[in-house]
Amino acid sequence: MEPKLNDEVARTAGAHEGPIETDAVIVGAGPVGLFQVFELGLLEIKAHIIDSLPYPGGQCIELYPDKPIYDIPAVPVCTGKELTDNLLKQIEPFGATHHYGQEVTVVQKQDDGRFYVETSKGTRFLTKTIFIAGGVGSFQPRTLKVDGIEAYDDKQVFYRVKNPAQFAGKNTVIVGGGDSALDWTLNFVQDGPNKAESVILIHRRDGFRAAPASVAKMRELCEAYEMQFIVGQITGIEERDGRMTGVKVTGGDGVTRVVPMDMLLIFFGLSPKLGPIAEWGLNIERKQIVVDTEKFETSTPGIFAVGDVNTYPGKKKLILSGFHEAALAAFAAAPYIFPEKRIHLQYTTTSPKLHKVLGVETPTFD
Amino acid sequence: MEPKLNDEVARTAGAHEGPIETDAVIVGAGPVGLFQVFELGLLEIKAHIIDSLPYPGGQCIELYPDKPIYDIPAVPVCTGKELTDNLLKQIEPFGATHHYGQEVTVVQKQDDGRFYVETSKGTRFLTKTIFIAGGVGSFQPRTLKVDGIEAYDDKQVFYRVKNPAQFAGKNTVIVGGGDSALDWTLNFVQDGPNKAESVILIHRRDGFRAAPASVAKMRELCEAYEMQFIVGQITGIEERDGRMTGVKVTGGDGVTRVVPMDMLLIFFGLSPKLGPIAEWGLNIERKQIVVDTEKFETSTPGIFAVGDVNTYPGKKKLILSGFHEAALAAFAAAPYIFPEKRIHLQYTTTSPKLHKVLGVETPTFD
Repeated sequence: MEPKLNDEVARTAGAHEGPIETDAVIVGAGPVGLFQVFELGLLEIKAHIIDSLPYPGGQCIELYPDKPIYDIPAVPVCTGKELTDNLLKQIEPFGATHHYGQEVTVVQKQDDGRFYVETSKGTRFLTKTIFIAGGVGSFQPRTLKVDGIEAYDDKQVFYRVKNPAQFAGKNTVIVGGGDSALDWTLNFVQDGPNKAESVILIHRRDGFRAAPASVAKMRELCEAYEMQFIVGQITGIEERDGRMTGVKVTGGDGVTRVVPMDMLLIFFGLSPKLGPIAEWGLNIERKQIVVDTEKFETSTPGIFAVGDVNTYPGKKKLILSGFHEAALAAFAAAPYIFPEKRIHLQYTTTSPKLHKVLGVETPTFD
Repeated sequence: MEPKLNDEVARTAGAHEGPIETDAVIVGAGPVGLFQVFELGLLEIKAHIIDSLPYPGGQCIELYPDKPIYDIPAVPVCTGKELTDNLLKQIEPFGATHHYGQEVTVVQKQDDGRFYVETSKGTRFLTKTIFIAGGVGSFQPRTLKVDGIEAYDDKQVFYRVKNPAQFAGKNTVIVGGGDSALDWTLNFVQDGPNKAESVILIHRRDGFRAAPASVAKMRELCEAYEMQFIVGQITGIEERDGRMTGVKVTGGDGVTRVVPMDMLLIFFGLSPKLGPIAEWGLNIERKQIVVDTEKFETSTPGIFAVGDVNTYPGKKKLILSGFHEAALAAFAAAPYIFPEKRIHLQYTTTSPKLHKVLGVETPTFD
């Protein structure tokens, strides 16, 4: 896919040379961030787009890639994946550079009016404008809230599986009722290079969001005594000599039992966090960035916020509102990029100039 | 087509019984008016939609049915006709009643807070809210500005052909350079029931917007002395005994000649006019209706304006902005229709209630 190729090029450039100089940096590659590329592109404003996820689409792809959406105007029904694919196709003519799997960690206003931007992967930019299309924030795993557990993060406690071999031969406790919990349970129980010494699945109720086939398979393995399933919630941990040795599990009967373990895998789903954007010094209200309704500009001139991340009187978190906001923000940004140029609204239906920008032919009739 | 059927039903009801009682009347069935049906429908607000044109689609259909549009979000390219068809499909579940070929002529606030609305065809409504989605207005032919010509309108001077037989056997002058001018020229020159006594085509320059094939055919007929083409502009008329006998045509050489005629057909294209809406007492600025950016409500509570017809700081006449405005206006209108109900934003992706309204199944996974 085109974005991945660009990603490589951009990372190499960022690592070995000076910062990338650009007109616009878009933070967030959900539908609104992608459409921001389009609206900037029509005004011949070049953009780089950054997302913490490893692929474009944001919430649409992360939360509901296959669920139908009915309220995109003139699209009676589409999935999150189709919406994303159509937007990627629509922005193709503008050749924006995509940078995935990285968060913006630094934003500093420079003396020349530009912003210095750095990501968690070390990609660096000097940009005239920033568009925050951060949606509800970056997706972080929901954590287990139990005293003292943070000390074991990434040692014995994990919220995602980066290296399955870590769990091979270990007494593993898995918590959760969704597909991730069930899939990894089956993976570590069944014969294979990563087979655990023992697997115990803990879920707060005897009912699962996971695929019924995975649940049936898990129950079969329980009946064959190859694993255990416990209904209950983790309410504490047991430690000895700086190691976690077990979790306290309170069952539906109110009784708390200790379940011994080497490794704990927790799948409570993803929760959005505004993340480092909250530290940029912007005017924020209830975790939303305050913007005006003319330019969708934040309290820092040159930084715009569009889509679910912003707030203004009447705001509704609708994708179609984000599209409108992206259009008006693009027009408002143009003077930062072309201070000398007067920007006129032109229509894609009739403007030969926009046809050139879009790489399409101008119809000759009438 | 479904709308036409509804139209018949509605007209019958309007003519023989009391006014139609409804939640919302939408004035204008362009893309934004059609999408207004959708946004109201999601909130279970029933709507009637009125347009002066004989079919839905507004400017998209009237001005560019076959020209590609590139800036509808997530639709890389579509024609005005496709956009209209997709919107009609999208609003199908809501069963709005369509009333075409009529303009709203009366709007009166009633004592009970509702509005009495009447159209040029006599359709009458009592409605809790009104949504003006009038675009750039209703399309009227551009007129020829020459002293005294109005007296002959619809007698010897015509801006559209309603009855071609009127021109049979007459000395006919046709003015314009587009398809309408050329098509009617060929029609009246060539043998057939409507063949004119003589045909003279006048256009301000020797170049045409009309289809090249029609232009070539016209030149052939000139060479065969079956008609005449004159480059020039009409600058006056000749009259005798209460009849128009000729037009004064000033050519590129500055010389004015009199061209005798019985009938004059003028095709200067269509020009949008705000029309009777301008008389409703709303706050208007430069022919645009002033609205706020939270509710898109006009200076009269309960009357909203969306799409190209409205203005507010930052306004761009983009279809996608109209879609956003329609969504926010629908939420703002809900308290007029359901004063007791608290309206929460729900998502078409996840809300079983919206699935019921849309007539689709709620997915069972996750």
